[in-house]
Amino acid sequence: MTSARKIALDAMGGDNAPAEIVNGALQAIAGDEALSVDRLILVGDSSQIEAHLESCGGNPGFEIVHASEVVGMAEDPRKAMRGKPDNSISKAASLLKRGEAVSLVSMGNTGMVVAASTLVVGRLPGIRIPSIAVTVGLSGHPMVLMDMGANVDATPENLFHNGLMGAVYAQDVLGIETPRLGLLNVGEEAEKGPQRCKEAHALLSASELNFIGNVEGGDVFAGKADVIVTDGFTGNIILKLLEQFGELVVRKLLGSAHEAGIKIPAEVASSALQDLDYAAYGGALLLGINGIVIIGHGRSDARAVSNALKQAARAADSALNEHIIAGLHPND
Amino acid sequence: MTSARKIALDAMGGDNAPAEIVNGALQAIAGDEALSVDRLILVGDSSQIEAHLESCGGNPGFEIVHASEVVGMAEDPRKAMRGKPDNSISKAASLLKRGEAVSLVSMGNTGMVVAASTLVVGRLPGIRIPSIAVTVGLSGHPMVLMDMGANVDATPENLFHNGLMGAVYAQDVLGIETPRLGLLNVGEEAEKGPQRCKEAHALLSASELNFIGNVEGGDVFAGKADVIVTDGFTGNIILKLLEQFGELVVRKLLGSAHEAGIKIPAEVASSALQDLDYAAYGGALLLGINGIVIIGHGRSDARAVSNALKQAARAADSALNEHIIAGLHPND
Repeated sequence: MTSARKIALDAMGGDNAPAEIVNGALQAIAGDEALSVDRLILVGDSSQIEAHLESCGGNPGFEIVHASEVVGMAEDPRKAMRGKPDNSISKAASLLKRGEAVSLVSMGNTGMVVAASTLVVGRLPGIRIPSIAVTVGLSGHPMVLMDMGANVDATPENLFHNGLMGAVYAQDVLGIETPRLGLLNVGEEAEKGPQRCKEAHALLSASELNFIGNVEGGDVFAGKADVIVTDGFTGNIILKLLEQFGELVVRKLLGSAHEAGIKIPAEVASSALQDLDYAAYGGALLLGINGIVIIGHGRSDARAVSNALKQAARAADSALNEHIIAGLHPND
Repeated sequence: MTSARKIALDAMGGDNAPAEIVNGALQAIAGDEALSVDRLILVGDSSQIEAHLESCGGNPGFEIVHASEVVGMAEDPRKAMRGKPDNSISKAASLLKRGEAVSLVSMGNTGMVVAASTLVVGRLPGIRIPSIAVTVGLSGHPMVLMDMGANVDATPENLFHNGLMGAVYAQDVLGIETPRLGLLNVGEEAEKGPQRCKEAHALLSASELNFIGNVEGGDVFAGKADVIVTDGFTGNIILKLLEQFGELVVRKLLGSAHEAGIKIPAEVASSALQDLDYAAYGGALLLGINGIVIIGHGRSDARAVSNALKQAARAADSALNEHIIAGLHPND
């Protein structure tokens, strides 16, 4: 196995670490779309990882890189970068920096993954601030939302980069041929919205991207665009809001049905939210980093971890970052 | 009837005008919480209004002010202000300007209502840009979101004013005793988020308002805050998104139930979204104007129009604007 294809998995990140993370690695090397066992490096407390593997029938051959420290989900990334130098996220990032792996997957502290990726692995040339691409689906059709929260003070140029990176990701990793880009705004007309959106609209219009113009809040799930471009503030609020709101609507409907004497089994209720569940697509991609970085939901179970690892493999095998760089300098 | 209590109703605004608007006026003067008929002024094409009233059994005594022009839902407000001087929204606004009414209710073009209110009626002293307060409910408990889209480029001072105006509205009109104010942001800590939020956090913290700090997207429906403060860009996108997403989740759940052989009657399904329906609270209030201005949903039916008229009456009978002015100058 060439190191250029290896995936460093943060075994300590997320609410269910290390058990569900290690279970996810085991799932990823089983089944039809299996990854080879030597493609994965588990990074974290080696005794805990070994013990869990032992309880699952032994280590099938995973390389384990020991990290003595863990960054909690709510810890301040800046403090953790200084105070916990041997944490599993930074250690995984340093494998990318040294060329011993090409991809990092973590279900841990999002801010910490962004910080370690930016400071340890480094940004792509021309990208000022990385952005998080999250994929949500409806009826099996994936849609990319950029940015989920890496850059809350986005400039028009940052928004343009979000569009470019999202389009390359949708094409190279999700296989959407000519992704349609929409800029999230309060109206369809080019002159609508805040100043940053007006300027981003002009930059996107002047580019060679397949920019379809502004899309409104009510268009997000209407299938108009494959990539929705916004700033990290709006993206973060939308995603957290939808997660909670979806559960709320289902709960209310179950309550109304119950009052009317109608029983709805739990699996029927949960299937309504399944297509909206981004675990189905693995995790979010931190784009603009000189490597492949995937950030999963803290609540990820083994299935979500396994999907994230397969997504990491697909992204690593694509020319994602080369295409982003080429898009930034179209005349080179 | 003193003119200081009169409500000017734009009979031509909205998808179902004038029929459903006039029906709403008729509903508002009937029933337990009835408004007196001489409190309402119907503004619009007098022959259309008279004809519809005739078909409903005759005019019970409404004053009608004729306006020969109508601004469409998608028209550019700036062009309409110039090109259609005798439109029903501007004409209703001029009744407030001249002191012949104290409140304006329209289900028409939101941007046009904002423009006519700002330019014809005028702003409250100290308020630079008006904001739209929308009330959504869950389990009967109302929550105010400020701003729904009047000011998309909000400064920290604008956000602070949104908080103040939202709190006064929640207290004076919705009857929430000491409304808890939350600033919508990407994290709970004061130093999180974009620059405008950090500065707004400081202004709100230093005020005498009951500011509980930042709330995240996932907290919006958790009942933590009575008033959610945000800019008009974020508020507009959230509201349009939730409306569509709620319907989508219900449709998906009905589909899953149908596949499982479970029939859910339409009224059970729609009741799940009912509490989230802001028509129940009448309409959105345009705050910061030297009068009471209510903007309803374009799709409003007679019930929503009637609720908006009752809300206008409650607001007009309160000391809403006096309290906003007092809040802006606490030491006067």
